[in-house]
Amino acid sequence: MSSASDRPIRIDGPQYSNWSEKIFRELRQGRVDALHVTVTYHEDFRETVERLVDWNRLFERHPDLLIPGRTADDVIKARATNRTAIFFGFQNASPIEDDIGLVEILHQLGGRFMQLTYNNQSLLGAGCYEAHDAGITRMGREVIAEMNRVGMAIDMSHSAERTTLETIEISKRPICISHANPSSWHPVARNKSDTVLKALGKSGGMLGFSLYPLHLKGGSGCTLDDLTAMIARTAEVMGVDHIGLGSDFCQDQPDSIIEWMRNGRWTKGGTVTPGLGKPVFPPLLSWFQSNRDWDGIEAALLRRGFSVEDAGKIMGGNWYDYFRRSFSPEA
Amino acid sequence: MSSASDRPIRIDGPQYSNWSEKIFRELRQGRVDALHVTVTYHEDFRETVERLVDWNRLFERHPDLLIPGRTADDVIKARATNRTAIFFGFQNASPIEDDIGLVEILHQLGGRFMQLTYNNQSLLGAGCYEAHDAGITRMGREVIAEMNRVGMAIDMSHSAERTTLETIEISKRPICISHANPSSWHPVARNKSDTVLKALGKSGGMLGFSLYPLHLKGGSGCTLDDLTAMIARTAEVMGVDHIGLGSDFCQDQPDSIIEWMRNGRWTKGGTVTPGLGKPVFPPLLSWFQSNRDWDGIEAALLRRGFSVEDAGKIMGGNWYDYFRRSFSPEA
Repeated sequence: MSSASDRPIRIDGPQYSNWSEKIFRELRQGRVDALHVTVTYHEDFRETVERLVDWNRLFERHPDLLIPGRTADDVIKARATNRTAIFFGFQNASPIEDDIGLVEILHQLGGRFMQLTYNNQSLLGAGCYEAHDAGITRMGREVIAEMNRVGMAIDMSHSAERTTLETIEISKRPICISHANPSSWHPVARNKSDTVLKALGKSGGMLGFSLYPLHLKGGSGCTLDDLTAMIARTAEVMGVDHIGLGSDFCQDQPDSIIEWMRNGRWTKGGTVTPGLGKPVFPPLLSWFQSNRDWDGIEAALLRRGFSVEDAGKIMGGNWYDYFRRSFSPEA
Repeated sequence: MSSASDRPIRIDGPQYSNWSEKIFRELRQGRVDALHVTVTYHEDFRETVERLVDWNRLFERHPDLLIPGRTADDVIKARATNRTAIFFGFQNASPIEDDIGLVEILHQLGGRFMQLTYNNQSLLGAGCYEAHDAGITRMGREVIAEMNRVGMAIDMSHSAERTTLETIEISKRPICISHANPSSWHPVARNKSDTVLKALGKSGGMLGFSLYPLHLKGGSGCTLDDLTAMIARTAEVMGVDHIGLGSDFCQDQPDSIIEWMRNGRWTKGGTVTPGLGKPVFPPLLSWFQSNRDWDGIEAALLRRGFSVEDAGKIMGGNWYDYFRRSFSPEA
């Protein structure tokens, strides 16, 4: 049996669960060394700080299960001590409001990922459900440069195509799409074209495969075999060094959370996000019920024909390499 | 001539100047290795964050003159590289509002000193200009424990006597009075009784000698000889290991800043703070016109009869030791 410190690194994220000791213990059972967690969807700066306060309390209460994740070294530290390193992400630019100085402030508070947009137009660019995509805004260019400077990863999971391609072009450091799948496999607004995936891989960026049923062919009925076939095809499109896990897992959350994600405060309600159906969580996948299930996914990658080395890259090695390149201030 | 890395450490603070490259260069000419700067007086959390954004910009613009000060090691790093390490302080509890979680958030953003009160009653305790001093409040006890836990120094410079004595008693880590003088020497509300100074010294705390003329016998006419005589007497009262510099220097500031300090937003104006006269900055001391003048103060301590070792402690060695004991999370 291998020791904790030489087994392959396992990293997932984002996840946005109703955090509890139960879930943190499941993360350990599933040997998740590092987790990118979503801190906020539509919250402004002050509200985001309250969610960071919540996380500080979780770190204080569970020092045996969690460590704050700030640099790639914390992944190694977590693995060596059988804990999970928690890296913070924001799924929208709302936490920085209209104030570029808040990028560095949020980085100082542990923020390591920020989406330039959620589903809608933001001050920085267009989301994937807007009818028109005018690309990166004036403030967007400034914020990309500032995120590059301080070491906050740019995440374009929910952004529109032109906005995403421009960001890949403008950003001096490789960006990521932390949770999405190829639209050639399952054509929904949130999945990504091969054009985007190729540009992403070529630039040194990362795609995390979403396990959210609405992003999967066959929805909640998608089989593990379907998933690994898609992963193998995507490895051919963008390179096996640029893909990883991005489960988008929301455990133990009420359906009201889906309402908040989709509608925030920007609509008085009744708005339908095209193609998404009612605001309820879909049934869980039979093969991914909790963070205890990662071994099965790794085994399926090996069955698909990935080498041990390549399966290790997909299960966390590539994210680890990306963390190492992304979270320190610009030299 | 001694090299930069073996000369005695020099530390002052708080200062609240109209920061500029000129002042940062004067800090280097005066060989100030570390400076405790006041970030806010009455600002709430969001406003405090904007002042931290201002400091982040100063660090970005002047990497040759400044480094962010977070731990005592940064003092050594600053001295070795001929820069000044900047440690943040808040002169009031207003930045944490009514939210104890903001103590850790502000520590993560570099906050290392916080006064539990400015001149008035706060949510935590009584300021030195209140007619009645009911001591530490319920929230005050909680915040003292939290500041102890995260490693933020408790500063009681502007607090009332009972509130201060209770804090010395309650706090598990030694507190400081960063800028005040003995009231036995100059009896004004802001100076401290021998009872406070003795308890402070006995607990392992620190007093920083204020050079603000209203805190000095003779005001702006106070001589360097008067000052060092008072320092020698205070060393007898509380021990030479517990005293340092706390100039309260405000350079290049308009008088409107004095209005803000005294009146904040808690009065519509016209309020007189007893004994302080008109809200204007008093004339500078002839022997302390800028941060270039620290050599003269050190020389005066030696003339007074302090040993080279003890003068070094007063000029910064004691603060360095206090920083080392105060800024890390509780073990």
